[in-house]
Amino acid sequence: MPGNTFGSLFTVTNFGESHGPAIGCVVDGCPPGLELSEADIQIDLDRRKPGTSRHVTQRQEPDTVEILSGVYEGKTTGTPIMLLIRNQDQRSKDYGNIVETFRPGHADYTYWQKYGIRDPRGGGRSSARLTAPSVAAAAIAKKWLLQQYGTVINGYMSQLGEIPIAFESLEHVPQNPFFAPNTSQIAALEEYMDALRKDGDSCGARINVVASNVPVGLGEPLYDRLDADIAYAMMGINAVKAVEIGAGFEAVVQKGSVHGDEITPDGFLSNNAGGILGGISTGQDITVTIAIKATSSIRTPRRSIDKQGAPTIVETFGRHDPCVGIRATPIAEAMLALVLMDHALRHRAQCADVSVPLLVNRK
Amino acid sequence: MPGNTFGSLFTVTNFGESHGPAIGCVVDGCPPGLELSEADIQIDLDRRKPGTSRHVTQRQEPDTVEILSGVYEGKTTGTPIMLLIRNQDQRSKDYGNIVETFRPGHADYTYWQKYGIRDPRGGGRSSARLTAPSVAAAAIAKKWLLQQYGTVINGYMSQLGEIPIAFESLEHVPQNPFFAPNTSQIAALEEYMDALRKDGDSCGARINVVASNVPVGLGEPLYDRLDADIAYAMMGINAVKAVEIGAGFEAVVQKGSVHGDEITPDGFLSNNAGGILGGISTGQDITVTIAIKATSSIRTPRRSIDKQGAPTIVETFGRHDPCVGIRATPIAEAMLALVLMDHALRHRAQCADVSVPLLVNRK
Amino acid sequence: MPGNTFGSLFTVTNFGESHGPAIGCVVDGCPPGLELSEADIQIDLDRRKPGTSRHVTQRQEPDTVEILSGVYEGKTTGTPIMLLIRNQDQRSKDYGNIVETFRPGHADYTYWQKYGIRDPRGGGRSSARLTAPSVAAAAIAKKWLLQQYGTVINGYMSQLGEIPIAFESLEHVPQNPFFAPNTSQIAALEEYMDALRKDGDSCGARINVVASNVPVGLGEPLYDRLDADIAYAMMGINAVKAVEIGAGFEAVVQKGSVHGDEITPDGFLSNNAGGILGGISTGQDITVTIAIKATSSIRTPRRSIDKQGAPTIVETFGRHDPCVGIRATPIAEAMLALVLMDHALRHRAQCADVSVPLLVNRK
Amino acid sequence: MPGNTFGSLFTVTNFGESHGPAIGCVVDGCPPGLELSEADIQIDLDRRKPGTSRHVTQRQEPDTVEILSGVYEGKTTGTPIMLLIRNQDQRSKDYGNIVETFRPGHADYTYWQKYGIRDPRGGGRSSARLTAPSVAAAAIAKKWLLQQYGTVINGYMSQLGEIPIAFESLEHVPQNPFFAPNTSQIAALEEYMDALRKDGDSCGARINVVASNVPVGLGEPLYDRLDADIAYAMMGINAVKAVEIGAGFEAVVQKGSVHGDEITPDGFLSNNAGGILGGISTGQDITVTIAIKATSSIRTPRRSIDKQGAPTIVETFGRHDPCVGIRATPIAEAMLALVLMDHALRHRAQCADVSVPLLVNRK
Repeated sequence: MPGNTFGSLFTVTNFGESHGPAIGCVVDGCPPGLELSEADIQIDLDRRKPGTSRHVTQRQEPDTVEILSGVYEGKTTGTPIMLLIRNQDQRSKDYGNIVETFRPGHADYTYWQKYGIRDPRGGGRSSARLTAPSVAAAAIAKKWLLQQYGTVINGYMSQLGEIPIAFESLEHVPQNPFFAPNTSQIAALEEYMDALRKDGDSCGARINVVASNVPVGLGEPLYDRLDADIAYAMMGINAVKAVEIGAGFEAVVQKGSVHGDEITPDGFLSNNAGGILGGISTGQDITVTIAIKATSSIRTPRRSIDKQGAPTIVETFGRHDPCVGIRATPIAEAMLALVLMDHALRHRAQCADVSVPLLVNRK
Repeated sequence: MPGNTFGSLFTVTNFGESHGPAIGCVVDGCPPGLELSEADIQIDLDRRKPGTSRHVTQRQEPDTVEILSGVYEGKTTGTPIMLLIRNQDQRSKDYGNIVETFRPGHADYTYWQKYGIRDPRGGGRSSARLTAPSVAAAAIAKKWLLQQYGTVINGYMSQLGEIPIAFESLEHVPQNPFFAPNTSQIAALEEYMDALRKDGDSCGARINVVASNVPVGLGEPLYDRLDADIAYAMMGINAVKAVEIGAGFEAVVQKGSVHGDEITPDGFLSNNAGGILGGISTGQDITVTIAIKATSSIRTPRRSIDKQGAPTIVETFGRHDPCVGIRATPIAEAMLALVLMDHALRHRAQCADVSVPLLVNRK
Repeated sequence: MPGNTFGSLFTVTNFGESHGPAIGCVVDGCPPGLELSEADIQIDLDRRKPGTSRHVTQRQEPDTVEILSGVYEGKTTGTPIMLLIRNQDQRSKDYGNIVETFRPGHADYTYWQKYGIRDPRGGGRSSARLTAPSVAAAAIAKKWLLQQYGTVINGYMSQLGEIPIAFESLEHVPQNPFFAPNTSQIAALEEYMDALRKDGDSCGARINVVASNVPVGLGEPLYDRLDADIAYAMMGINAVKAVEIGAGFEAVVQKGSVHGDEITPDGFLSNNAGGILGGISTGQDITVTIAIKATSSIRTPRRSIDKQGAPTIVETFGRHDPCVGIRATPIAEAMLALVLMDHALRHRAQCADVSVPLLVNRK
Repeated sequence: MPGNTFGSLFTVTNFGESHGPAIGCVVDGCPPGLELSEADIQIDLDRRKPGTSRHVTQRQEPDTVEILSGVYEGKTTGTPIMLLIRNQDQRSKDYGNIVETFRPGHADYTYWQKYGIRDPRGGGRSSARLTAPSVAAAAIAKKWLLQQYGTVINGYMSQLGEIPIAFESLEHVPQNPFFAPNTSQIAALEEYMDALRKDGDSCGARINVVASNVPVGLGEPLYDRLDADIAYAMMGINAVKAVEIGAGFEAVVQKGSVHGDEITPDGFLSNNAGGILGGISTGQDITVTIAIKATSSIRTPRRSIDKQGAPTIVETFGRHDPCVGIRATPIAEAMLALVLMDHALRHRAQCADVSVPLLVNRK
């Protein structure tokens, strides 16, 4: 496959460029009969859209979604669902200065080398704006997973640059622009961001995502393991450089007598596995952590070269997120939802007849 | 796809169980005309086979590979290459005691829940033994990549349990049973392993893999990004819990002015990206780090339940690696080779006509 | 895959319903650097669009295509090309009468049984209108194939109902509403169609398609043979009931000494193979014949049942093609182009290095 | 995908060459818990194997199948099922004379052009011998389909060269070497074949296949229609040149008032559709007809060229079927079974929740 389709049975075929006329996706494989309206999708798009605080890009995009197919009288029909998002706030001129040069840390150089042509407007296809269609598609998956299994997926920021964010409660997450699970640190985070912007610099972030009430048995054991597909989905998000499941790197120093989660009739006694054993979901919470690099577009001058290979200096103006991690939480939730949805359909294709009395299925 | 096939154009369809008659794979999509013999493949299988030191499982498996198709007069024909490895040292009786119980940290419970039936002999399909066919298939990919681009892939252990291993030189790697790049620490590592075995416990490890002389332009930008597929491949290895590319989690604390790799006519000035920008290879070294959990099979008694959900105690005897990480290095190299091979073919399918003068393509 | 994506490397993901807001597709995998404008695509859409003569449906649809992504400054960028066609002439009320009943010969019954819900407006997803996106995508493939190999694809009607149409010349095809290669029979064809409409009946047709200047070597031998994929593409067109390649059913009575095409240094001496041997193109013309059934929507009363399983009588009014075969020629050409394009990319992925001196490559 | 894997959820990855050490396949996606033994598979392999009458090739191959994985204690486990068939009767020397020349009607020329290398022994990969693994895999599908839905698939020969075979009863099929549904014509068929062999010539055949008790709702409407996938599967069989479903080419001359199958509360009144409407199964019998060309390997001298492009004469000796159609019946049944199995799994992945009261579901 050419690479712009996510999933095998619940598929998302993504198209568009940052400053083209529109972005969107075709969602195929959605079960029929699911009640679906644009409002169901808009909620998640609004959580990810730009311009919602001074700490993110000021590009004004309502990210209004239109459903152009696959829904009849308020229900999915089992045919492809086309989701269209028109780009509103295009300012190609902002990018005129980068047509001939390669911005350090960006995909300018690699696109040019791979394709011999690139759309430089806002990074074109390589812009994080292309995560919007994934978020829109995932809203459908989240609704179905919730109805089928009561599955809920929650993410939050656990570190902003050098500042670790203590976990207080998921209830704090919607109450601040950072998706931080801790309101008491918001002032410190805002101060940190303001200083960064003043310096014309940017920073990274760490995001955690947790899926609860996941059915046991999802995942194809050998290559298409549930953890493998989660890693693929997360590392595929723009700017992500690392993925951990469960104990993650901590597992290196854990002895076997510590790491292996013991089981009792009342459930597992720990969750170092992060809800996945042998590539298959255990029914425990699926816990994922990702690392997001600092935005590459900064005002600080950086050395680079132009298309002729001559040395040049790049300073990026225009509108950019000083920390792309701030808007990454709903995106990470979305990617996890897409993986779970796809594996839920794959599981019932092969194992619909299996009726094992569920044993322990608690946290 | 049912999940046991890796790749899209260079595919590996893996079959077998730890104690069944045989394991192996069908490799499809290999370009025709590549000189190939069983010896080319055996080299890599020998690096990961068991019983080579007292620090790994004592199961005796020569892992001898037979090529049953796809090669004619010493050259690949472009048709499927069938690689068969007969299991020699089966001791099903070792596993009789786990038929009715679920070993903590193993896939016993999830297989049972997913399929309603499982082959308990040595973990059946969930055994790390099933990485052997991947290693065999990757030997073909490595040979082709080396001939086409001079690509070489090297891995090494950078931490064993609590002991970080300082990098001295790749030359040390083949000279010790740990794939450590540092001979001076071997005594300490052996002492550590002996103590672990004495305690009936196990430990984790950190492995690094580096691919050099990678062509620029590999990777499909949106979902099938090169980094996303590497994460999928690595997290799909048994016992892996985390994957980093380039700076990895360090990217969280790096400022944008530090992380973004500057470019000069002489090449990139750093490689925080780990050789991938926007999901596409830059031509720099691709650097990957993975975390491997401790072996779950230990003599230490652990709480669990049986198929009826009743509490029980599990002590695992039989033959096991006290640190599965020790044999993980050739496996991680193999998975990276499979990803690069697949993307090399995908790239030339779409971009065979692109002829951009390669700009900087050095480390 | 959920079934609405055509191809493996040059993919077309199709969406929409006959009377929804829009139809279209996302074309992924197109090589970069191809000059492309909406005009290139409109030409083929215009050949297939309705309302062009009294012998086809009078629904007025300009079928104007918009390119929403994947093209920058007049050239393809290697990213997904989104093609949108807004539906203009929707008359849902025409279909109110079939919401509760199943039209004989239509997909009403099977959609209802499969999905438990269906969009009845003009057949919804099952309408032949959904061939328009395939035609649009194929216009891109045809342009690329022509530039790369000089490949040209021509179709024509060889039989209308009971009337065989003698082949005179391809030059006649664009000069009549039937795509007939014989202008002298047009009057007879029109008379036949007028009588059919008067009777409230419909008829079938036979269409031939020929691809010339096809490169030798396209096709994956075992399952994804070029002929197998052509059969899949053709039988997938609405109303097609049979597919022949080369001699087709005539091969049943041909002796081996007659059927097997002899080869000389000047080329093949015949083409009973239809340009494909062992599933791989020979370089000769690829010749395909398809059978198209009569339109199922007719004014003649037909017995059927309603959703409750009660007997009813169906008479279909609204606007319909009395012979869907009339507009099938450009569709059949399009499907053949999509198959050849996909296999051209697949071939160079695996065999880009093969340099066999082309032997005979003539008709 | 490289082309040697059939199916999307129930996949068959086929390997081997006519005179290599072995042929076989990996079957992935089989539901767990199905009772399966080698005997279940051998039955179908024996129906297709060579040497069973004087009218087929005298190559002696027991085609004994070994199950090397995926079955534990007599039941499928949901993991890949590896089926191995060792080649016994290899006579490479028979083929020495064709190493340098291209046999008319064979794939010699196209393989050479595509790959630049070919295994000439018995046609290597292009031999009809490679249908054996498909037949073996289909035996698993047939068993599952029968248990799940009572689906049965029967094929028979309806024409041998110029001789049409009247349908008397399926009971006659196993009682003669031609799979003819009419014992009274056997003498005439044998006489015809004996004359052909005497003349050193060969002939074609027409085969019909019928699937009964097919569940309603199988098939993905737009591209992966059930009829499209059947056409792909049938045209993919060696020597097949045409495929009809239902009325097939007869549909060209049928008026809409004749072709469209009327529906009553007691069922459909006819089956011109061949059990498929809009690409989805109706529950009626699925009826397929295929045309098989005459064997290309004949003793009659034929003109051809050698690898240097110089003219030569080819007379094929060795052991060949004078009519490959004779052994095609079990192969056609197998391919239909594989298509139905795959679509049955695809259907329940997406529509497992759909519970429409089945309306008419009779022939």
